[in-house]
Amino acid sequence: MTDDSTATLGIGMVGYSFMGVVHSHAWRNVRSFFDVPLVPRLAALAGRNVEAATAVADKFGWEHVESDWRALLARDDVDLVDVCTPGDTHAEIAIAALDAGKHVLCEKPLANSVSEAAEMAAAAARARQAGVRAMVGFTYRRVPAIVLARNLVAEGRIGEIRHVRAQYLQDWLVDRQAPMSWRLEKSRAGSGALGDIGAHIVDLTQFITGEQITGVSALMETFVKQRPAAEPAAEVKLGGHVDAGDAPLADVTVDDAAVFTGRFSGGALATFEATRYAAGRKNAIRIEINGSLGSLAFDFEDMNVLHFYDDSESSQTAGFRRILVTEPDHPFLAAWWPPGHLLGYEHGFTHQAVDLVTALADGRGPEPTFDDGLRVQQVLAAVEQSAAKDSAWTVVGG
Amino acid sequence: MTDDSTATLGIGMVGYSFMGVVHSHAWRNVRSFFDVPLVPRLAALAGRNVEAATAVADKFGWEHVESDWRALLARDDVDLVDVCTPGDTHAEIAIAALDAGKHVLCEKPLANSVSEAAEMAAAAARARQAGVRAMVGFTYRRVPAIVLARNLVAEGRIGEIRHVRAQYLQDWLVDRQAPMSWRLEKSRAGSGALGDIGAHIVDLTQFITGEQITGVSALMETFVKQRPAAEPAAEVKLGGHVDAGDAPLADVTVDDAAVFTGRFSGGALATFEATRYAAGRKNAIRIEINGSLGSLAFDFEDMNVLHFYDDSESSQTAGFRRILVTEPDHPFLAAWWPPGHLLGYEHGFTHQAVDLVTALADGRGPEPTFDDGLRVQQVLAAVEQSAAKDSAWTVVGG
Amino acid sequence: MTDDSTATLGIGMVGYSFMGVVHSHAWRNVRSFFDVPLVPRLAALAGRNVEAATAVADKFGWEHVESDWRALLARDDVDLVDVCTPGDTHAEIAIAALDAGKHVLCEKPLANSVSEAAEMAAAAARARQAGVRAMVGFTYRRVPAIVLARNLVAEGRIGEIRHVRAQYLQDWLVDRQAPMSWRLEKSRAGSGALGDIGAHIVDLTQFITGEQITGVSALMETFVKQRPAAEPAAEVKLGGHVDAGDAPLADVTVDDAAVFTGRFSGGALATFEATRYAAGRKNAIRIEINGSLGSLAFDFEDMNVLHFYDDSESSQTAGFRRILVTEPDHPFLAAWWPPGHLLGYEHGFTHQAVDLVTALADGRGPEPTFDDGLRVQQVLAAVEQSAAKDSAWTVVGG
Amino acid sequence: MTDDSTATLGIGMVGYSFMGVVHSHAWRNVRSFFDVPLVPRLAALAGRNVEAATAVADKFGWEHVESDWRALLARDDVDLVDVCTPGDTHAEIAIAALDAGKHVLCEKPLANSVSEAAEMAAAAARARQAGVRAMVGFTYRRVPAIVLARNLVAEGRIGEIRHVRAQYLQDWLVDRQAPMSWRLEKSRAGSGALGDIGAHIVDLTQFITGEQITGVSALMETFVKQRPAAEPAAEVKLGGHVDAGDAPLADVTVDDAAVFTGRFSGGALATFEATRYAAGRKNAIRIEINGSLGSLAFDFEDMNVLHFYDDSESSQTAGFRRILVTEPDHPFLAAWWPPGHLLGYEHGFTHQAVDLVTALADGRGPEPTFDDGLRVQQVLAAVEQSAAKDSAWTVVGG
Repeated sequence: MTDDSTATLGIGMVGYSFMGVVHSHAWRNVRSFFDVPLVPRLAALAGRNVEAATAVADKFGWEHVESDWRALLARDDVDLVDVCTPGDTHAEIAIAALDAGKHVLCEKPLANSVSEAAEMAAAAARARQAGVRAMVGFTYRRVPAIVLARNLVAEGRIGEIRHVRAQYLQDWLVDRQAPMSWRLEKSRAGSGALGDIGAHIVDLTQFITGEQITGVSALMETFVKQRPAAEPAAEVKLGGHVDAGDAPLADVTVDDAAVFTGRFSGGALATFEATRYAAGRKNAIRIEINGSLGSLAFDFEDMNVLHFYDDSESSQTAGFRRILVTEPDHPFLAAWWPPGHLLGYEHGFTHQAVDLVTALADGRGPEPTFDDGLRVQQVLAAVEQSAAKDSAWTVVGG
Repeated sequence: MTDDSTATLGIGMVGYSFMGVVHSHAWRNVRSFFDVPLVPRLAALAGRNVEAATAVADKFGWEHVESDWRALLARDDVDLVDVCTPGDTHAEIAIAALDAGKHVLCEKPLANSVSEAAEMAAAAARARQAGVRAMVGFTYRRVPAIVLARNLVAEGRIGEIRHVRAQYLQDWLVDRQAPMSWRLEKSRAGSGALGDIGAHIVDLTQFITGEQITGVSALMETFVKQRPAAEPAAEVKLGGHVDAGDAPLADVTVDDAAVFTGRFSGGALATFEATRYAAGRKNAIRIEINGSLGSLAFDFEDMNVLHFYDDSESSQTAGFRRILVTEPDHPFLAAWWPPGHLLGYEHGFTHQAVDLVTALADGRGPEPTFDDGLRVQQVLAAVEQSAAKDSAWTVVGG
Repeated sequence: MTDDSTATLGIGMVGYSFMGVVHSHAWRNVRSFFDVPLVPRLAALAGRNVEAATAVADKFGWEHVESDWRALLARDDVDLVDVCTPGDTHAEIAIAALDAGKHVLCEKPLANSVSEAAEMAAAAARARQAGVRAMVGFTYRRVPAIVLARNLVAEGRIGEIRHVRAQYLQDWLVDRQAPMSWRLEKSRAGSGALGDIGAHIVDLTQFITGEQITGVSALMETFVKQRPAAEPAAEVKLGGHVDAGDAPLADVTVDDAAVFTGRFSGGALATFEATRYAAGRKNAIRIEINGSLGSLAFDFEDMNVLHFYDDSESSQTAGFRRILVTEPDHPFLAAWWPPGHLLGYEHGFTHQAVDLVTALADGRGPEPTFDDGLRVQQVLAAVEQSAAKDSAWTVVGG
Repeated sequence: MTDDSTATLGIGMVGYSFMGVVHSHAWRNVRSFFDVPLVPRLAALAGRNVEAATAVADKFGWEHVESDWRALLARDDVDLVDVCTPGDTHAEIAIAALDAGKHVLCEKPLANSVSEAAEMAAAAARARQAGVRAMVGFTYRRVPAIVLARNLVAEGRIGEIRHVRAQYLQDWLVDRQAPMSWRLEKSRAGSGALGDIGAHIVDLTQFITGEQITGVSALMETFVKQRPAAEPAAEVKLGGHVDAGDAPLADVTVDDAAVFTGRFSGGALATFEATRYAAGRKNAIRIEINGSLGSLAFDFEDMNVLHFYDDSESSQTAGFRRILVTEPDHPFLAAWWPPGHLLGYEHGFTHQAVDLVTALADGRGPEPTFDDGLRVQQVLAAVEQSAAKDSAWTVVGG
């Protein structure tokens, strides 16, 4: 039973792995919970492995499968191209799609290099003239606790920012026998922990503070320099472990970990750390912000919670408040369950879909923009340059 | 694109409110993540308010809407009736459906009285002869951390159970101006906090321990005896607050809170508490179990975590472990995201759907059975009897 | 170097074990941190085992050792008798001391029976006429976070009390080979977990709420009914484990655990639990109070912290505040370290000494009084009676 | 009553403020709890303000007061000089004392410059030939949870160290009206947050890992460059707030915060942060270490707890263990209370006294040595150099 009165937005998605699955779920379910002005239609899914793509399409109700992403650009039923492939293909697909007049949602990091990202931002600027929009998928911006953090900063509740402390900690490479994957190849992934997870904390801290990182000093390291080569056919699941046996060794060509200090535009000092070697930390996006009037703390492993310290409180009763971000007046929550009934990882993608289709329907540009994505890429590039030059202070975009 | 080779299971759902929504989501999405042997089809949704039912049907893709649940029983495309209505209608609908040869999934509590629950269990026993199955929806049994807790107990990891400590704490009635709703009317809801939320901790503690509550001693209380009557037309959202103004007052006819001690069949001492007056606790299902070899602790407000203390550890390094229950080998997790990417409230309903359709496909009886539901109802009845008799010890089912 | 201008208070202490040690430390150090109007002098320590008593006296600077507590009553340099012996001797010593005109500080529980406690309260009333004061040592009342909790309740910050939830959980009897000790003999200890640790949560919840427990319904249990008899000479340290080998078994004559529901005078519902079988909980005094305007939560295993939920906060930012009770304006804290530098277990005893000597200097009666101690004893007696009568509701003091 | 058979160690202490008080308490009480081979005697306290020094002497039982620290060196009853003054006087006092044949305990940081620290280390080396010993007071090394962390690393429980993450966060300068104090004057304090609190995390991470920091890249900042000058006479309590009114402004000449990355000798990447601007963090010494076999986490605001993740655990039950470090077999704990009865800030000083007098009695060199103190000073100097040179990588001791 379809309500024919609501306009639809035809989605053409490229890629069907982890990101493809979670995007599929979001496109399919967003209108079940939100009154969106444009209803996404799962028009077509493109994947080189047609069999695998068809299996995902069948599970989520994609209407068509294409073996080549270029075919999506030719389809009249596709209004938006959702790019869920590894970073080395983002620029080509996204620019072609924008030039073909399709809106684009592109997974992060925007690209594997600043130059690619800059071309993409230029393409987005051109497309904007024609009313065609581009958005980069820094999905964690849509976690309700993160939006609340941003709102509290914007309302001045923590005052002038003094310190930013951000870590993205995982542990799926602690095991020396964890196999190679495209995420460990520079040619595919661009960088390692830095681009894959460090990109998120760069974007999130800029988003929450409303400021930009102006310079960095960095260290990077590859702790385990060779890993067993998994069978090409084998699906290497993120976080899984493969018993590699006598597999030949392949070179890890990306960083295992990156740590850096930085400055924000308002003068705050920052420390950043991205690693896949923090045993016991599974997906710990930890962000702390200290301001002249208060502090915030967040950990994605307890993603429905924001900790807030209000320094204007009486010292008798001041303390970090554990805010369970599940009240009806918290961001996005009115659409979901009663207080105390938690949201999970995929809800951020559903919220991203809400914001994107709402912006498109309103003729506004969705955020984060490709310029935001470029800015993150410039920070990542500055980190790599600094690490290559004995941690020398490196101006972002300089 | 539908894979025609998989058999389907036609679902007919009664009710479209909170439970109807979350069940709809589960039926619709289960096959996107799990390889189920029977694929649910959202055949028909029944609701007296056809307009409202149609709106929900449209959002989730129910194929048909019926204004009377009886119509579902006559439909050939309905194989299972999913009862998501208030407790006063469970018995009539579920028994009729079973007698009509439809499998039944019935929301908890099974019924508003022991006698009704007993009739339902009898109907389920009859139906079983004909291969027709009945299950009661104690969904929290499908939270991965709860399943892990049950598994650890079953494996003997905490030994002989000494203490059970269970609370279900909410706070949506702390506000004296929170309005009346059907949940506060004995004729509709059967009981208050006891049946609505106390039922869950009774079932969960019996499930995890593998034991039964044999006797209880109870106190019950209604703190606020009259509340503003909300407009009948107004949708009173659980956890919301309505500014009642000069609304006439209506009598609250159920308990606001129930506390009781109890014994488990293995000799453990237990304390239980169910209340909607615990300011700041939004949906705190807190369960602690102490055994001769270790302990477990769980809080639904941090639902992806199980705390486990292993007393066989060296005292140098013994301590409660905060297990983030998101590893691929944790219950149900292989179907979802990488480690550290949390699940939310609705995932339990998806897991319930998996287990239910798998049991039906295998010709096994799904659990919890109507007998389990009856057992919970007997405990609730014993609590009410004890509270009515000055906390006198009351044998369950006695 | 002694400032002779300050009056002193001669202390005569009976007992030199765990409680004797921690009292000694308090008496000796209180004036190092607090400007007390009466400076305690460690005049004399009485213990039947003179050698052991002398060792403790030497370590803490007690000036004299007596082998018989009666000798303390005859000493002119003793102004206050501090009773740190097991409960079976409290009544005799305390009454004799009061009648001899000595102030008394008596460890909890006040006595092993209501009748003894009543005699002690009567003796205290008599003594009061002569300006002689009596206090019972419910020391946890002097933990700063507990005082802050009481203050917040008294200021109306959490409104009308609805729920009290109190547990005192230890685990030193989980091990079946933990040996017998006087704490497991009814004739010495009066009761088991109930009197030893349950007494604390009865007192603390009455103290914090400013209300009294009016009735109870209880269950008690002895899980392990015989234990290896330790050598009389062996010092059985609380929480230690003795390898009992082929030791003969002795009967445990007290409760291992007590759980009960209760009512407070203001109508609140309560649950209580005292046990030494909660594996992994070492000294978890956990108290939660829910009121019509907010909530409080405390756990002695994190004793410098009070959790406070203020329901008048905006729902955007409401959350339990983790108050680190180490600010200069927190109770007792001005005397100690800078913020964030924690206090430990023994500080409560130092604070008790401050309050006691200050009250004596001011001619006020120190609290908790023997009447408070009697009230606790009446609650414990009601618990035992209820447990003996199938959990029948039992009025306290009835 | 003094046991004359035990040898004594005469203590001469310089300074009587915060550190003087906590050292006094340790010297006075250590033998009440520990069987020390040398019993400290509080022989003499030196302070320029004789009145204030006498008040402290009176409270803690120091036998004599001197107005000049040089007088301590001439006293026969002084065997050890305990230096509790600001950092600018450490070198002169400590070197003179060592040269006079007195053992020295010197508060951290060892000195205000590397050259001073080097001279002190040289003096300590000379003195060692004569059996005279020197120790620097990095007291946090004696927190039981820290010792346990070090032991677990030494036993190989977390494997090869990959990441060190250390922060020392306070908030007593968040208030712009917090007044000047000697801690904010470079000439007195040497540096600001870096030397005062950063020194602790430099020492602690080197202690726990058993490795050294080989290089750093740093940022430093003074957020509030002028502060109200407090009256010289006013005692400015750390963490207190003075209403400065129209007080003249004085220049803050030290850093408010320092952040730096670093490398450990075993190859680990590290981030460090020391600040007094982290609103809501009172004394948060937070240390996390990730290794190839597990992880550790500590926060001084919960100082009795160590979190330990053992990666060799089954993924079913692996999780950070919250070890309550209060068991009898935990470091130093056998002397104190039963399990679950917490220790506080000053206990670390008592433990320091135990280890120091035990080492002296045994003829061993106590740790941390002046060489350890020098090493910390070299790291701090490298941090300052790097910060002065645009974060350039700076080799420690280079």
